[in-house]
Amino acid sequence: MRHKGILVVVSGFSGAGKGTLMKQLVRTYDTYALSVSMTTRAPRPGETDGKEYFFVSQEAFEEKIRGNGLIEYARYCDHYYGTPREYVEKQLQSGRDVILEIEIQGAQKIREQFPSALLLFVTPPSIRELRRRLSGRGTETEEVIAARLVRAQAEAEGIGQYDYLVINDDLDVCVKEMHMLIQGAHRATNRNKELIETIRTQLQELAKGE
Amino acid sequence: MRHKGILVVVSGFSGAGKGTLMKQLVRTYDTYALSVSMTTRAPRPGETDGKEYFFVSQEAFEEKIRGNGLIEYARYCDHYYGTPREYVEKQLQSGRDVILEIEIQGAQKIREQFPSALLLFVTPPSIRELRRRLSGRGTETEEVIAARLVRAQAEAEGIGQYDYLVINDDLDVCVKEMHMLIQGAHRATNRNKELIETIRTQLQELAKGE
Repeated sequence: MRHKGILVVVSGFSGAGKGTLMKQLVRTYDTYALSVSMTTRAPRPGETDGKEYFFVSQEAFEEKIRGNGLIEYARYCDHYYGTPREYVEKQLQSGRDVILEIEIQGAQKIREQFPSALLLFVTPPSIRELRRRLSGRGTETEEVIAARLVRAQAEAEGIGQYDYLVINDDLDVCVKEMHMLIQGAHRATNRNKELIETIRTQLQELAKGE
Repeated sequence: MRHKGILVVVSGFSGAGKGTLMKQLVRTYDTYALSVSMTTRAPRPGETDGKEYFFVSQEAFEEKIRGNGLIEYARYCDHYYGTPREYVEKQLQSGRDVILEIEIQGAQKIREQFPSALLLFVTPPSIRELRRRLSGRGTETEEVIAARLVRAQAEAEGIGQYDYLVINDDLDVCVKEMHMLIQGAHRATNRNKELIETIRTQLQELAKGE
C-alpha cells in the first residue's frame, strides 16, 4: 500500500512549541525523518553542525542555490536559511515521511514543488495562551514582543494555505494528533492515484476474463 | 474548538463491508449518529422501520421530495431511496458527526450541498479479495457476479471524488482508521474558518492594545 513518504511542513506561531513537537514526534514513531536546514549564520553555543543546522559559508550556500540543491531558501537578518533537496528526496523515496519546519513564506514554495506535501500549522490552545507565549517568560523587551505580534498577525493571514490546524495544548496529545493527521494523509485519494489506477485496470481485466 | 458536526459519506465496492464498519463505528464511539435512509421498497424479513430504513409509501416519498425534505434521492429498481434532511441537519448542528452510506452517484450531490462533507470510499485490501467478495459465498449466479463487476468498474471510476480510501482488511483496525480520519477532518483549516477569523481579530486587538 505505501510507496512514497509525505513531505510534512510544520509552521506556526512563535512560541507554539513546534520544535519540541517535532522532536517528540520523530522520537516516538520510527517512520519519520527530520529535515535539517542549512544556514550561513554562526552556530550558537551548544548547537552542533548537522543537528540544529548544517552550518556553511555564504559561498557554499550560494553554490547550493545555483546547483538547485535547495528546495527552498530565504534570506533573513543577513543570513541564508534553506532546505537541502537531496536528504528530503532520498527519504521520501525510501517511504519515510519527512518533517520540515519552515516559515510561512516558504510553505507556498514547497507546495508548488511538492503538491502532495501536507501543511500543518501549530497554534497554542487559546489566544490567552498565545499572548502568554508571545510574551515569553517576562524576560523579553516590549519591542521584541511587539515584533512577534506583528509577525503573528502576518502568520495568521497565511493559515488558510495550510491543510490542518494543530492545537498544541498537551504535548503528548498533540504529537499523537500530528501522527494521526500524517497517517490519515497517506489514505487520501490524491496520494493514491497509482493504487486507484491499478484497481481500475484489474477490474477491467476481471470483467474481460468473466 | 468543536462547533458543528461533519457529514461523513461512506461509499464503497459491493462486499467491501461498509454496513458492518459503520455499525461498529457508531457502537464504538459516541460522537457519531447514523443517518437512516428512506425507501419505498417493502421491508425484507427481519428489517425494522426506522432501523435499516424508514419504509414509506411512494406518495409520502414524493411529498418529501416536493418539500425539499431530502438532501439526495435516487430511483433504483423501481423504488425510491433518499436521505431525510431534518435528522442530518439537527445532528450536525448539535455537533455530532453524521455517517451516511450512499451510492457513488449521490456523493456528488451531497458535496454540492455540504461542501465540508467528508467522503470516504471503502475498499477490500486487495483485488483478489475484492474478486472474492464480489463473487459472494459461491451462492451467486454468474449474472449477479457480472452485474456487480460492471457496477464496481463504474464505482472505481468515481473514486477520485472521495477524500480518502479506507482499506477494510481487519474490522477493528479499519474502524479505528475511519475514526482517525473523521477526527483529523475536524482539524482541517477549511472546517475552522471561524476559529481562524477569531485568531486574526484577536491578534489585531492585541496589537492595538500593546
